[in-house]
Amino acid sequence: MLKRRMTKQEIIQNIKRKRSFLCVGLDTDIKKIPPHLLEEEDPMFAFNKAIVDATSPYSVAYKPNLAFYESMGVEGMIAFEKTVAYIRTHFPDQFIIADAKRGDIGNTSELYARSFFEHTKVDAVTVAPYMGEDSVKPFLAYNGWVILLALTSNKGSMDFQMTEDTDGVRLFEKVLLKSQEWASDEQMMYVVGATQGTMFLEIRRLVPHHFLLVPGVGAQGGSLEEVCRYGMNDQCGLIVNSSRAIIYADNTQSFAETAAYEAEKVQQEMERYLQI
Amino acid sequence: MLKRRMTKQEIIQNIKRKRSFLCVGLDTDIKKIPPHLLEEEDPMFAFNKAIVDATSPYSVAYKPNLAFYESMGVEGMIAFEKTVAYIRTHFPDQFIIADAKRGDIGNTSELYARSFFEHTKVDAVTVAPYMGEDSVKPFLAYNGWVILLALTSNKGSMDFQMTEDTDGVRLFEKVLLKSQEWASDEQMMYVVGATQGTMFLEIRRLVPHHFLLVPGVGAQGGSLEEVCRYGMNDQCGLIVNSSRAIIYADNTQSFAETAAYEAEKVQQEMERYLQI
Repeated sequence: MLKRRMTKQEIIQNIKRKRSFLCVGLDTDIKKIPPHLLEEEDPMFAFNKAIVDATSPYSVAYKPNLAFYESMGVEGMIAFEKTVAYIRTHFPDQFIIADAKRGDIGNTSELYARSFFEHTKVDAVTVAPYMGEDSVKPFLAYNGWVILLALTSNKGSMDFQMTEDTDGVRLFEKVLLKSQEWASDEQMMYVVGATQGTMFLEIRRLVPHHFLLVPGVGAQGGSLEEVCRYGMNDQCGLIVNSSRAIIYADNTQSFAETAAYEAEKVQQEMERYLQI
Repeated sequence: MLKRRMTKQEIIQNIKRKRSFLCVGLDTDIKKIPPHLLEEEDPMFAFNKAIVDATSPYSVAYKPNLAFYESMGVEGMIAFEKTVAYIRTHFPDQFIIADAKRGDIGNTSELYARSFFEHTKVDAVTVAPYMGEDSVKPFLAYNGWVILLALTSNKGSMDFQMTEDTDGVRLFEKVLLKSQEWASDEQMMYVVGATQGTMFLEIRRLVPHHFLLVPGVGAQGGSLEEVCRYGMNDQCGLIVNSSRAIIYADNTQSFAETAAYEAEKVQQEMERYLQI
């Protein structure tokens, strides 16, 4: 069980104070980090630590993507755990999201929940909705935030998520509606892709108060201005992720400074749109 | 890239030879294994090794469920990797399934694929379809088997998988239809839950030749006879999983013998239904 969940109100306060709703995606790929870091004992962690130290003034959240750590086997998982512990200790006002897109039958989801909320102690986990209620509830029972996939930003989102049922409700809409029976906006958020700006209007009709985690701004091609115009609510309601455009902006010795510079640019743009 | 994929024909030959289509699920929970194993250096691996050694005459596949290993952190992942390596070396005719239910945007799914097919070298990975084609294709590109979730055995499967679209096609049926554009029955299988016996009739209309991975026989309550009556095709076409009913049948010193006894009972029942 996660001892204490960062509340929605605290997230909003952090956004207000920092004038930012930026999440930095820690898609840490050993093949892309600056070569001089490969001499470090734990290059992935060394990279993450430097990125977090440099970008934290401009962000409110970090999102390690589990695939990058798992693909490095045991060493990668050590780097993941160290990264979460480091952020938690040194930057306790940052919201930590394990981007894992898990979802399995109840007793299995419970183990994933135990892993992320009790063992590693992140604030939130991304969860896939395909298997329904009992695949999601164990994460809630562990007192963490669930960030449920609704409308993703990739091309394949057209394959199933846009399918209309006999009442004209599309699958991603059904996910938004049905899942509100499982948790409120105090414990659930949704992943909503940024490549479909005007879709946010329709989504806000179904989930006016929830936070939305928006990937796909930057390298995946979404426009921050459009996301804010259509997706923002009166408490901001957005956490917008950028990964590659920040963390891989530079792979020389000054990579962390460049990442800070890029994060600050995004923060300044965010400040212009922020109305709280 | 997986150097060589076990072919569908080889799987069929193994089933014929062993008179079994049993998959033993390695849902290895440190809290459930026999207490005397806790003195071992790597209790999870010690348990798996003993279970595999004892049950392999009666099975054609093993399915470690990643959640159980991840929930133990780094030690768990070491046990997972050692287990796969052990099966691969000592029982090369066993089909190894990483039950991970992954699925993410292309570049992330590629990392998961690299992790499972290149690093750990399993034969197959279970994949969630929600994010569509580009979340599935990277696994195929790594030359491994994809076992796509279609109709799962849990209660939550009713939430979205049974939703009918405007043409009267249910979501799990759409998954079965659409995904056949991505790979043939030589590289894709489907997860089909066993609690809905007669549903197999409808599923076989859409995927007559594919192998189906059937969880939920045993502890989850499905009937093997019903699954075989409605789901078997002329090349067997079924891999039926049993986890808890075999691996936790006994938690004394003789747990492995008891597991072998339980696996043999299932194998003998399977032999009665097998028509190849």
